[in-house]
Amino acid sequence: MEIFFSSDVDGGLVRLNQEESAHCVRVLRHRAGDEVCIIDGCGTMMRCTLLEASPYEAVARIEEKIPGWGSHPYHLTMAVCPTKNADRFEWFAEKATEIGVDVIAPVIGDRSERKVYKTDRIRRLLLSAAKQSLKGAVPEVAEPQSVREFIASAPADSLKLIAYCFEGEKLSIREALEAWNGGRVCVLIGPEGDFSPAEVADALKAGFKPVHLGASRLRTETAALTSVAAVYMKYM
Amino acid sequence: MEIFFSSDVDGGLVRLNQEESAHCVRVLRHRAGDEVCIIDGCGTMMRCTLLEASPYEAVARIEEKIPGWGSHPYHLTMAVCPTKNADRFEWFAEKATEIGVDVIAPVIGDRSERKVYKTDRIRRLLLSAAKQSLKGAVPEVAEPQSVREFIASAPADSLKLIAYCFEGEKLSIREALEAWNGGRVCVLIGPEGDFSPAEVADALKAGFKPVHLGASRLRTETAALTSVAAVYMKYM
Repeated sequence: MEIFFSSDVDGGLVRLNQEESAHCVRVLRHRAGDEVCIIDGCGTMMRCTLLEASPYEAVARIEEKIPGWGSHPYHLTMAVCPTKNADRFEWFAEKATEIGVDVIAPVIGDRSERKVYKTDRIRRLLLSAAKQSLKGAVPEVAEPQSVREFIASAPADSLKLIAYCFEGEKLSIREALEAWNGGRVCVLIGPEGDFSPAEVADALKAGFKPVHLGASRLRTETAALTSVAAVYMKYM
Repeated sequence: MEIFFSSDVDGGLVRLNQEESAHCVRVLRHRAGDEVCIIDGCGTMMRCTLLEASPYEAVARIEEKIPGWGSHPYHLTMAVCPTKNADRFEWFAEKATEIGVDVIAPVIGDRSERKVYKTDRIRRLLLSAAKQSLKGAVPEVAEPQSVREFIASAPADSLKLIAYCFEGEKLSIREALEAWNGGRVCVLIGPEGDFSPAEVADALKAGFKPVHLGASRLRTETAALTSVAAVYMKYM
């Protein structure tokens, strides 16, 4: 099933932008009268009939709206330090979308080798991953911020977890999630060189719970994806 | 910490092959007297002193052997249909090594688009993933076989799980693992077009338990990695 995206919904009509129109009409050769499925990126899938099969601006009529299409029963924010090699971070973000994530927040730590992160490429990737995995919502990508800014602004009504490698008493992420009643959760994952002790101290002061991710030494992107899987599995 | 690999262990001495010797001596400039860490690929890490810093055949003396280095408390066989795009299967195998897997068995299903799979590239990748994630054991890569051959030869003393998308009563993989006492487990993951009904019937007859992987529509490689994470998390 091919899914299209549009945020241009007006009453009972949906307009596709030029890229989506070209894909729909030129590549997939859809014609007026065809049924097409369009997501709005915010959670709703619209079953539509194509009215104008223009390769520049296709227009479709909404027949049915399915809210919460492919949704998951939690709200997960993953705040992750982008890896030196951008591919690895993109891979994480794509796979996290497939499994189920709501916000991806690239954060820059004291020890991050990568101090700058551009979000345009990843936004495109996540749109395509959401379509591919039949989800009406495309995860939000936050603007890059420092770990400290993220800690200071993390919502009070979330379960807040920070995974790091220093010694210290910690629950496993599975145990921390077992004790949780569900709802909103955010997980903070550090850079290749881990968080600085000052960042960890800040996080704990702000109510983050320290967790570990088991005995294996996981790379940043694998630690992040394992965290997404842990949240997903709580509801499995 | 840089880890080397050698299966050439003789009494108290370890010889590195040409590739590892060149990396150790030419690239990392190790000299006689340096401490080097060498895994045997079967689970043991040897802390050694370099005796002959030859870039063709370096020789080291074993000072200490650490068996079960970076090991995990289960034995997991992942039988997975290689994806059309080989990168995706390699990605899975690499990440599974990082998290913890023992055998990767590429299997070809009735509906596999990829009917042939060459294992040489993946063996090299897994050696490098094991070193990187500080594990003494490199996962075994089985020779490709059909799904039916794998089903027929799956060990009787394993928990055997098959994940597929057809309707039918199934536990989630988490629930199936909760009811399990630990030890050996194997998980069978189908190709992009799923297993054929005949393959599923064969598997159930052979004692495989059907499981689902939650509500998200996961690609083959993501389904496989989520399964590895589920087993890993049982022991977390």
